[in-house]
Amino acid sequence: MSRYSELKQIAWECNQELPARGLVTHTFGNASAYDPESSVFAIKPSGVPFSELTAGQMVVVDLDYRVVDGNLKPSSDTKTHGLLYRHWSDLGGIVHTHSPYAVAWAQAMKPIPVLGTTHADHLARDIPCTAVMSDEMVTRDYEEQTGQQILDALSGFSHAEVEMILVACHGPFAWGETPQKAVENSYMLEMIARMAFHTLAINPDTPRLKDTLLRKHFERKHGPDAYYGQP
Amino acid sequence: MSRYSELKQIAWECNQELPARGLVTHTFGNASAYDPESSVFAIKPSGVPFSELTAGQMVVVDLDYRVVDGNLKPSSDTKTHGLLYRHWSDLGGIVHTHSPYAVAWAQAMKPIPVLGTTHADHLARDIPCTAVMSDEMVTRDYEEQTGQQILDALSGFSHAEVEMILVACHGPFAWGETPQKAVENSYMLEMIARMAFHTLAINPDTPRLKDTLLRKHFERKHGPDAYYGQP
Amino acid sequence: MSRYSELKQIAWECNQELPARGLVTHTFGNASAYDPESSVFAIKPSGVPFSELTAGQMVVVDLDYRVVDGNLKPSSDTKTHGLLYRHWSDLGGIVHTHSPYAVAWAQAMKPIPVLGTTHADHLARDIPCTAVMSDEMVTRDYEEQTGQQILDALSGFSHAEVEMILVACHGPFAWGETPQKAVENSYMLEMIARMAFHTLAINPDTPRLKDTLLRKHFERKHGPDAYYGQP
Amino acid sequence: MSRYSELKQIAWECNQELPARGLVTHTFGNASAYDPESSVFAIKPSGVPFSELTAGQMVVVDLDYRVVDGNLKPSSDTKTHGLLYRHWSDLGGIVHTHSPYAVAWAQAMKPIPVLGTTHADHLARDIPCTAVMSDEMVTRDYEEQTGQQILDALSGFSHAEVEMILVACHGPFAWGETPQKAVENSYMLEMIARMAFHTLAINPDTPRLKDTLLRKHFERKHGPDAYYGQP
Repeated sequence: MSRYSELKQIAWECNQELPARGLVTHTFGNASAYDPESSVFAIKPSGVPFSELTAGQMVVVDLDYRVVDGNLKPSSDTKTHGLLYRHWSDLGGIVHTHSPYAVAWAQAMKPIPVLGTTHADHLARDIPCTAVMSDEMVTRDYEEQTGQQILDALSGFSHAEVEMILVACHGPFAWGETPQKAVENSYMLEMIARMAFHTLAINPDTPRLKDTLLRKHFERKHGPDAYYGQP
Repeated sequence: MSRYSELKQIAWECNQELPARGLVTHTFGNASAYDPESSVFAIKPSGVPFSELTAGQMVVVDLDYRVVDGNLKPSSDTKTHGLLYRHWSDLGGIVHTHSPYAVAWAQAMKPIPVLGTTHADHLARDIPCTAVMSDEMVTRDYEEQTGQQILDALSGFSHAEVEMILVACHGPFAWGETPQKAVENSYMLEMIARMAFHTLAINPDTPRLKDTLLRKHFERKHGPDAYYGQP
Repeated sequence: MSRYSELKQIAWECNQELPARGLVTHTFGNASAYDPESSVFAIKPSGVPFSELTAGQMVVVDLDYRVVDGNLKPSSDTKTHGLLYRHWSDLGGIVHTHSPYAVAWAQAMKPIPVLGTTHADHLARDIPCTAVMSDEMVTRDYEEQTGQQILDALSGFSHAEVEMILVACHGPFAWGETPQKAVENSYMLEMIARMAFHTLAINPDTPRLKDTLLRKHFERKHGPDAYYGQP
Repeated sequence: MSRYSELKQIAWECNQELPARGLVTHTFGNASAYDPESSVFAIKPSGVPFSELTAGQMVVVDLDYRVVDGNLKPSSDTKTHGLLYRHWSDLGGIVHTHSPYAVAWAQAMKPIPVLGTTHADHLARDIPCTAVMSDEMVTRDYEEQTGQQILDALSGFSHAEVEMILVACHGPFAWGETPQKAVENSYMLEMIARMAFHTLAINPDTPRLKDTLLRKHFERKHGPDAYYGQP
C-alpha cells in the first residue's frame, strides 16, 4: 500500500463528487488534494472517464510536477494545480470543472458581478475573470501559464478572500483549505453563475449588492465575529 | 425523549423535503414548524448540511429567540422566522430557500407579475418583493429586520392572502397554516418564478392576467364557494 | 369490482406518466381516458396529489358531467374534457398539464410557430393558442367554456390534424386516439415549446419551416403513404 | 444466432446510451454501428420506443440500403447513415438525436461558433450547419439527400476533422471511428450548443476563440504531439 494512499483516497472521493453534482461529464475536469507536509498533491489521471476512476489510479505529483506515485499520466492540467500549490502553501485542494453556466461566463470573458447574498456568503467581491492568455504564454507553457493567469487576476487579494475564478475562454477553477471545500466552492460558483445569468436576463440594469449587505453576509460567515454555523 | 420531539420530527421532515424538491443545496435555506400552544418553533441548526441532518438536531426556540430545546445553534435566520410567528400567531410553518429562479427575481429586485392561472391558483396578486434594507437596519439587527421587511412589504394584505415573498437581493420566503403547506408554497414560488421568466422572455409585453380570470382561479381554490379539491 | 375498472386502470396509468415525465407537479394537471362504447370517461379526482393517487380513486363521468362511478369529486377540469369528448367521439384520451415551457407560451398568448422537423413530425402547422376568454364566458361556466375556446381555436382543422393546443393565460391541453397517445402528445408539446423558445432566442428572425419540408415530415409519419414506424 | 449479433449488440448499447444521456426521447433519434469488413451497419428499427428496444430488434443493412438481417423495418433515417458510410469507409458509427440545444441551433440555421476550449477540445472550427434542402432534393429522396447535405457542408474538411454537424431545420448528427465515439460526440455537441447559447446571451459580441488557443487545445488532444490522455 502506497504511503500516499490516504491522499489518493481523498482526491478520488472529491473527483467522484464532481459528476455526482453535475459539474463535469465524461473526462472533463479534475480535483486534486494537497499534502503540505510532504509538498505533494494527488490528482486525477489524464483522460480517464469519471465513471471508471479508482482511488488507486490517482497520481501523486510533487511541486516540480514530477510523478512520485502512480502508474498513469496525471491530468493535463497538473501544472496549473502545481503552480497554485507552490504559491499558496496553505491550500488543501483545487477543482477544475466545465460546469455549464460558469463556462458561459468564462467564454463571455466577463467577471460575475455580486448581485445578492448567495454570492456574498462566499465572496465579498465579483468573481474575477482572467485576461485572455497572450500568444507567447500559450506557446511557452500553456498549463503552467494558466496558473499564472489565475495568480495575476487575483492581484491585491489573497486566495482566502477569493476562492473561485473564471479562466477566460476556458472555464472555472476553485480552491479551498480542504479538498472538500474546493469541491463546494466549485459547486457554489456554478450556482452563483446560474443565478447571475437569470438575474441580468430579468433586469439588465441590476446594480451590484450594496456594500453594507455585502459586508454583513460575508462577515457573518467569514469575519472575526462570524456567527453562522456551529461554534 | 424531548417533549418537543414531535415538533422536531415535523420540522426535520420539512427540511428534508427541500433538497428532495431541488429548492436548496448544501447548507442553504431552512424550514421551521410552529406550535401555537407552547409558542415555540423547531428550526434547522445553523450550517449543518441537509444530507447529514437528523430530527434530533433540530433546535426549539421561543418567541424571544431563546433556545428551549436542542444542543446546536439554531439557523442564522432564526429571528426572521421568530418575528413572523410573533405577528402571525396562526401560522404553522415558514420556509426559506435559495431556489434559483426565485433568487434571480429577488436579486433583480422585481415583484413577479401575475401572468397566468398557475400563479392565480395560489395568489390573487403579484408576488411582492421587499424594499432593499436600509444601512441602519442592516447594522441594527439584520435577521430580525429581514422579518420586518417582509411584514412591511405585505402591508394591507394578510399573510393568508400572500403566502410567498421575495426579499430583495436575497431570496424567497414562504409560509402556510401548516409546515407542509409552507414547503409546497416554497416549491410553487419557484415554479411560478420560472414560468414568469420564460413568459417575459417570449413576450416582454405580456400583460397581467385579467381580473376576472384571476378572481375565478383564486376563488375556485380559496374563496368561500371553493370547489377545487375534495370536500 | 367496478365494470369500469379497466378504464380507471388506464386513466390511472396515464396520470402516473405525467409526473414521471416531468409534466406535472403536486396536484396540477390531469389525464382522462374515454370509452366510446359507453360514452363515459375516467378522470383524476380533484386536488389529490399524484404521488398518492390509486387506480380505484379515478372517477368515471358521463357526457352530461354526471359521476357514474367513484367516491371522489372529479377534476375541476372535468367539463373541459367532457365537452371535447362530446364533440370528438373518436377520441381516446385528453391530457392537461402545467409543463413549464408550454405554460410560458400560453401565458405569453403566442402560438408556437413551426420551426423544424420535430414539430412537423407531429403537426403540419403552428400550435394554436386560444383567444383570451371573455368575462361573460368566465362567469357563465368557466371549465366548459375552456373546452369551447379550444374548439373555436381549431376552427377549420380536425382534432386529428391538431392534437395539441395552448389555452391562453393558462396552459397546454393535448389529446389522441388513445390515452397513451394523448400523454405522448402532451410530452412532445413541451419539447417543441422548449426548442422553439431557444431557437427564437438564438435567432429572433428564424422563419417558419418551408412547406416542402413540413409536408415531407408530416406525411412520412401521418400521410396516406407514411413509411415511418413498423407496418 | 445471427452472424451479425455482435454488431447488433454494439448498436443496441449505443442506442441505449442516448436516452440515458438525455439526448433522445420516445422514438426520436438513432445510433448505428458499421462493420467495414462486411460493409454493413446495424441500426435502430423505425418507430420503436427506446424503452422497449432489444438487441435482437436491431436491423442490419448493406450499403445499397438492403436489409441483410433483422425482422423489422430499419430507421427512416437509414439512407442518411448509409450514404455517409459509403463515402467514409473508415467510420465506425453515426448518431442522430433531437437533443434540445443542438436542435435549437439547427432550427435557427446557425453554425455554432467556437467560443471556448471545451469546443476546441473536439473541433478546430465552428460546428457547421448545412444549407436548407432544396425542394427538388426533398421530393427526390429526402433521407439520402440529408446525407448529401452533410457531405456538402463539410466540403474542404475531412470527417475526422469535423465529427459533428447540424442539419438545418432538423437537428444534429455526429460520427466517430467507433460507435461509442459517435455517441460521445453527440453528447459533446449538445454540451457545446448549450454553453454557446448562454455565452452569447451574456455577451452577444463574444469573439471567436483566438487561433493560438484553438490550436493549442485541439492539438494537445488530436495533434501529432498530443499529450492528453494515457499513452
